[in-house]
Amino acid sequence: MKTISLVLLTLFVPTAHAVRARDLGIQVGRMKTGKWNAITDVAGVRVGQKTLNFGDGKLVIGKGPVRTGVTVILPTEGNTWNEKLVAGSYTLNGNGEAMGLTWIQEGGILETPIALTNTMNVAKVQAGLIDWMTKQVPGIGVTDDTVCPVVLECDDSTLNDVRGQHVSSADVVKALDSAASGPVEEGTVGAGTGMISYELKGGIGTSSRVLTTEQGGYTVGVLLNANHGRRKQLRIMGHPLGETLALPSPYRPQEGSIVVIVATDAPLDSRQLSRLAKRTMLGISRTGSVAMHGSGDIAIAFSTANRVPHYPKAITYNMKIMSDFWMDPLFEATADASEEALLNALVAAQKVVGRDGNTALALPHEAVKGLFKRIN
Amino acid sequence: MKTISLVLLTLFVPTAHAVRARDLGIQVGRMKTGKWNAITDVAGVRVGQKTLNFGDGKLVIGKGPVRTGVTVILPTEGNTWNEKLVAGSYTLNGNGEAMGLTWIQEGGILETPIALTNTMNVAKVQAGLIDWMTKQVPGIGVTDDTVCPVVLECDDSTLNDVRGQHVSSADVVKALDSAASGPVEEGTVGAGTGMISYELKGGIGTSSRVLTTEQGGYTVGVLLNANHGRRKQLRIMGHPLGETLALPSPYRPQEGSIVVIVATDAPLDSRQLSRLAKRTMLGISRTGSVAMHGSGDIAIAFSTANRVPHYPKAITYNMKIMSDFWMDPLFEATADASEEALLNALVAAQKVVGRDGNTALALPHEAVKGLFKRIN
Amino acid sequence: MKTISLVLLTLFVPTAHAVRARDLGIQVGRMKTGKWNAITDVAGVRVGQKTLNFGDGKLVIGKGPVRTGVTVILPTEGNTWNEKLVAGSYTLNGNGEAMGLTWIQEGGILETPIALTNTMNVAKVQAGLIDWMTKQVPGIGVTDDTVCPVVLECDDSTLNDVRGQHVSSADVVKALDSAASGPVEEGTVGAGTGMISYELKGGIGTSSRVLTTEQGGYTVGVLLNANHGRRKQLRIMGHPLGETLALPSPYRPQEGSIVVIVATDAPLDSRQLSRLAKRTMLGISRTGSVAMHGSGDIAIAFSTANRVPHYPKAITYNMKIMSDFWMDPLFEATADASEEALLNALVAAQKVVGRDGNTALALPHEAVKGLFKRIN
Amino acid sequence: MKTISLVLLTLFVPTAHAVRARDLGIQVGRMKTGKWNAITDVAGVRVGQKTLNFGDGKLVIGKGPVRTGVTVILPTEGNTWNEKLVAGSYTLNGNGEAMGLTWIQEGGILETPIALTNTMNVAKVQAGLIDWMTKQVPGIGVTDDTVCPVVLECDDSTLNDVRGQHVSSADVVKALDSAASGPVEEGTVGAGTGMISYELKGGIGTSSRVLTTEQGGYTVGVLLNANHGRRKQLRIMGHPLGETLALPSPYRPQEGSIVVIVATDAPLDSRQLSRLAKRTMLGISRTGSVAMHGSGDIAIAFSTANRVPHYPKAITYNMKIMSDFWMDPLFEATADASEEALLNALVAAQKVVGRDGNTALALPHEAVKGLFKRIN
Repeated sequence: MKTISLVLLTLFVPTAHAVRARDLGIQVGRMKTGKWNAITDVAGVRVGQKTLNFGDGKLVIGKGPVRTGVTVILPTEGNTWNEKLVAGSYTLNGNGEAMGLTWIQEGGILETPIALTNTMNVAKVQAGLIDWMTKQVPGIGVTDDTVCPVVLECDDSTLNDVRGQHVSSADVVKALDSAASGPVEEGTVGAGTGMISYELKGGIGTSSRVLTTEQGGYTVGVLLNANHGRRKQLRIMGHPLGETLALPSPYRPQEGSIVVIVATDAPLDSRQLSRLAKRTMLGISRTGSVAMHGSGDIAIAFSTANRVPHYPKAITYNMKIMSDFWMDPLFEATADASEEALLNALVAAQKVVGRDGNTALALPHEAVKGLFKRIN
Repeated sequence: MKTISLVLLTLFVPTAHAVRARDLGIQVGRMKTGKWNAITDVAGVRVGQKTLNFGDGKLVIGKGPVRTGVTVILPTEGNTWNEKLVAGSYTLNGNGEAMGLTWIQEGGILETPIALTNTMNVAKVQAGLIDWMTKQVPGIGVTDDTVCPVVLECDDSTLNDVRGQHVSSADVVKALDSAASGPVEEGTVGAGTGMISYELKGGIGTSSRVLTTEQGGYTVGVLLNANHGRRKQLRIMGHPLGETLALPSPYRPQEGSIVVIVATDAPLDSRQLSRLAKRTMLGISRTGSVAMHGSGDIAIAFSTANRVPHYPKAITYNMKIMSDFWMDPLFEATADASEEALLNALVAAQKVVGRDGNTALALPHEAVKGLFKRIN
Repeated sequence: MKTISLVLLTLFVPTAHAVRARDLGIQVGRMKTGKWNAITDVAGVRVGQKTLNFGDGKLVIGKGPVRTGVTVILPTEGNTWNEKLVAGSYTLNGNGEAMGLTWIQEGGILETPIALTNTMNVAKVQAGLIDWMTKQVPGIGVTDDTVCPVVLECDDSTLNDVRGQHVSSADVVKALDSAASGPVEEGTVGAGTGMISYELKGGIGTSSRVLTTEQGGYTVGVLLNANHGRRKQLRIMGHPLGETLALPSPYRPQEGSIVVIVATDAPLDSRQLSRLAKRTMLGISRTGSVAMHGSGDIAIAFSTANRVPHYPKAITYNMKIMSDFWMDPLFEATADASEEALLNALVAAQKVVGRDGNTALALPHEAVKGLFKRIN
Repeated sequence: MKTISLVLLTLFVPTAHAVRARDLGIQVGRMKTGKWNAITDVAGVRVGQKTLNFGDGKLVIGKGPVRTGVTVILPTEGNTWNEKLVAGSYTLNGNGEAMGLTWIQEGGILETPIALTNTMNVAKVQAGLIDWMTKQVPGIGVTDDTVCPVVLECDDSTLNDVRGQHVSSADVVKALDSAASGPVEEGTVGAGTGMISYELKGGIGTSSRVLTTEQGGYTVGVLLNANHGRRKQLRIMGHPLGETLALPSPYRPQEGSIVVIVATDAPLDSRQLSRLAKRTMLGISRTGSVAMHGSGDIAIAFSTANRVPHYPKAITYNMKIMSDFWMDPLFEATADASEEALLNALVAAQKVVGRDGNTALALPHEAVKGLFKRIN
């Protein structure tokens, strides 16, 4: 049992040679990526992940097997409380829990890091975010406002002991404290550890796009957790590859969810960021998703360009705003980066044997390479 | 027949002594009004109205009797096309037509004047706005974008030959060309000519509030067209006055609509303006309205503080934005001005005998005065 | 310290003589109430509450003083999972956390009890609901779907050690297990223990209305937790009573929140229930509320008339639906019951001295009685 | 001048051999189509079109050249007023006019036919619908409610004298009176006459899908008017074909719009139909669309399965409802039919030379055939 876990853990170690969609010949759209082709290409944005992967065999609620974790996105260098960011959101299909979403929609701001985890761990992960926030801003709930941190989830119950709620407050704090810029580990990692997408192993994926100087030179970064879709729906660059894969499916059809975070340094207001959030789902739909009934397809977008002051003395403040007439390249960037992030998740994810032996196979790289060799 | 019409028309002449809610002892809230206690207290905002009131007796579709008109709000001094305003909206109950609303919601801007009219005249009134806009911006639909003007409506079919669509494009242009700042005629005028509210004669009402210097010193102006509610629901300053009025009701219960325009010089973004638009309905509900099924209760709010450029060469522009933490006085101002605008409409409106002898009686001023004498 | 707590606890004991708004001469609207004038007048709806009230003096985070609790609404006799109810919602102002709301909006159903608590206890209260649900439906998260229980909150941090998150999972289960039909304790009880409304002691309030036989004979019940508004805004039946109260205010102005649950046996679909949810805020606005920036004003409405099957074998099922054309009495019932529930909360609530000596005074009954003696 | 028009008109004559996407080797998804692969596969749904195509050369506003028209969808055999249909909608990007949309969203019903036309002809087309409706229901606006017909638009100003508003009320009535079931003419016809999509000639397209008996056996039909997108975005079955087409583009980049109608005989409520409407955009996004800023991407969905009574005497009525848990095949059907309808529009559309010689070229069929020959 332990042996297998260790082997799996070994695979999770990020290496310079982690295979991504582009390595298999996939080229989404015409725009350039950022340096890391990751959400961390947006300056100041950091990602931290804590993977919980232990135990094998039959499910014992509260014991395991455990195939889950948490992925956090820190939108700014400091805590975001006193210098909030402008934010927006979009719910394509709301079969999911989304803590903090109501406040983003009303206030148009993001004032905490964002955490991704499994469906039944949302509450504990929120507790971790509260612990971290109150350490940084001790007045919260005492001399200052209470806080509503942002937590999104997907259901990893096919592989994971979801009822065990294994992600602790301490795990969240660890993920937050380890958050960094640079390359982001993808696939079977953090909140993506137990996720299944298109009846293949899914999980965390990321990608980015950079506008030309004439378009403003802005960067759009996307990070998502893929846990949605049926095998037969899967299209890669339009090709119905899913239909052709002669692989067994995991136990019970998984409808899952896909949650998406968009970061940009373009100076957008909350209305514009909600427009951007909508475009994530257009990119993801190109891979075959039709946002099934049981899926929580939710996107949050934030901009690092402006700061919204916390209880300011001054009644007004100044914002730089991008003209809507210039937004089209951002829309394309968001759709393309979302499509590629999803493909990156599938390409990076490793086979996982979870609770009760339920197994999610990895997307076979050879099938993808063969496809592109044939058509190009 | 003509004699009666002339008598009615005489009553419509605005005088320095037009009775308003405050003249009857009604005092809504604790904030100060602007100079005119009208939407025109917001600098640059003008109102124009064209009243159509002729014919009596039995309805002959296309002939009359006619009890209708158009009321226009010009949000800026010039045409609003090249220097758009930030705007938002709110639909409490969407049983109505609202041209241009979809675009306000998406783009967060207002780029034409706003017109109010009757339900089945919406298309012709839009044509009038297009005529006026294309005269000012000849490139519209040729070298420039097409235009989606904003038209809201209420149903005056109890008093008016609504099927006759008597408001012409020329009437709209006349209203636009005559638009002015200063006092605004209320009650049985313009788009309010045939409206019925709480089974009493309703129509156009307006009011304003000014924030203190410490609150930013901003002005909020409201103009509405009242055509909603049942008699028994009517509360004036909380008193169930409607129940006590021993007056006959007009032919068939009217569910009607109430459409509301909010103008402010506070520097708000579109999200914040939609928040303001929501508060109009809180003020109106204090008069007893519960937004009945058949009612189109729709509000649009715009700010004159910033200008949104039309196809700018520059990718970004600067906006001054009010901190949300300072918005509470604006919310109170909007609710209070909406409540008072509704009461002003009822107080100002005159008895109208419409098609087929259908009659809407005026709110009896003595009943209101008696009420406040008793309780104060 | 203990002595005072015991005295307060004594006051919380429900008695046949608990004073309600009607006892002070307040009469909201023209419709009849149900037997209990409570949400429990809707057959099958039960309410359970657990009050936590102990400790005094200076705030020690994690110790107290504690002035908080949980209030649960069980919408059906059994667990609601296998026989879901149709539900809708409305957010007037989204400054709050609302677990489960995204799913209600998408799926149009309610499949768990609803819990109300304080802002920073949301996660722990959700854990309690999950514990209770999984005991009843052991397959949740294993062979069945994961669950997203509904939890709404208000911020009681002025009186309570909100950071201590004192409401435990066990407290939630106790509240659920003790839930009953019949009269509902109001004011300083359950989730309302530490709430402040209009700078007076607020908390739990409830009321109901019954339609006439000609209107369908349906019942509408409302339960709310009042924690919003400023003293000067308070109007009782339209009278600006708040301005006249010469009482000190609690420490720091509280913007708070107001969360509202509507139950009905009228056979409504989710769209119609969302329309009902909107009308709660119209009733509450009559008491002076303008839905301040910092307020989470959120309503959820459900109907007990139809059952939505869980993963049914049959593709379709039959529903009885109320014609929209008949909904107006329901709108009026909802607005009136919401207004009265709010007033009931204020009338029932007792003075509370909380953390750091922060004190919320009760609405002085004599002032209300004097008002109505004067005007009637 | 006339000669050329006549030649063009000849091309519009529908033939048994009109080329559609499937004829070029395009196969969207795995589900079966209905008999006509058109919206008319939903029993009772009829389509009528009136094409206006005359004049050439330089634009003279009010004279031409004219490249426009109207397309109407009749949802039921009779007038829809007394037996309304359940309906829903979705706005992906609201840069457009959408008459009647507010009422669909609130009331969840469709009570008139739907008309598609050009942006500045919306008002006149609404007048035509009103003429037709009032002939059938003479009480409208007199003894019965006023009516808010549904009109959607795209901007054909690059090819058409849009300012001329050439579609008359009589044209609309002609289209309504000629509406029929059976095959639907696609491409450069009716409201699609002057439309441009992906910088190629666009216009009307339609497609359908039929669920298996196990899935309920329901039919989904889609009809759209395609006027959106940039050439380089065009993907056919995922292949970036747009980039490879060495063709000139029409005068000025067209952002346009895409409006979509979904009909189904599946028994859905309005919430479910809005979910269906959302999925149209997922299908369209697979062809490369990212819903550009200037685009009005709006969908309306209706079900023919239930009838909503008009001012019924009975308070309630019965509906058959599809369980949400069974909706996934409908989602896939809607996305697939929308993608194929878009491709059908492009494949069917003919080259059009419009005002000022502005030219929209047709999608070269050979390029598509070559693509699929190469990859299959």
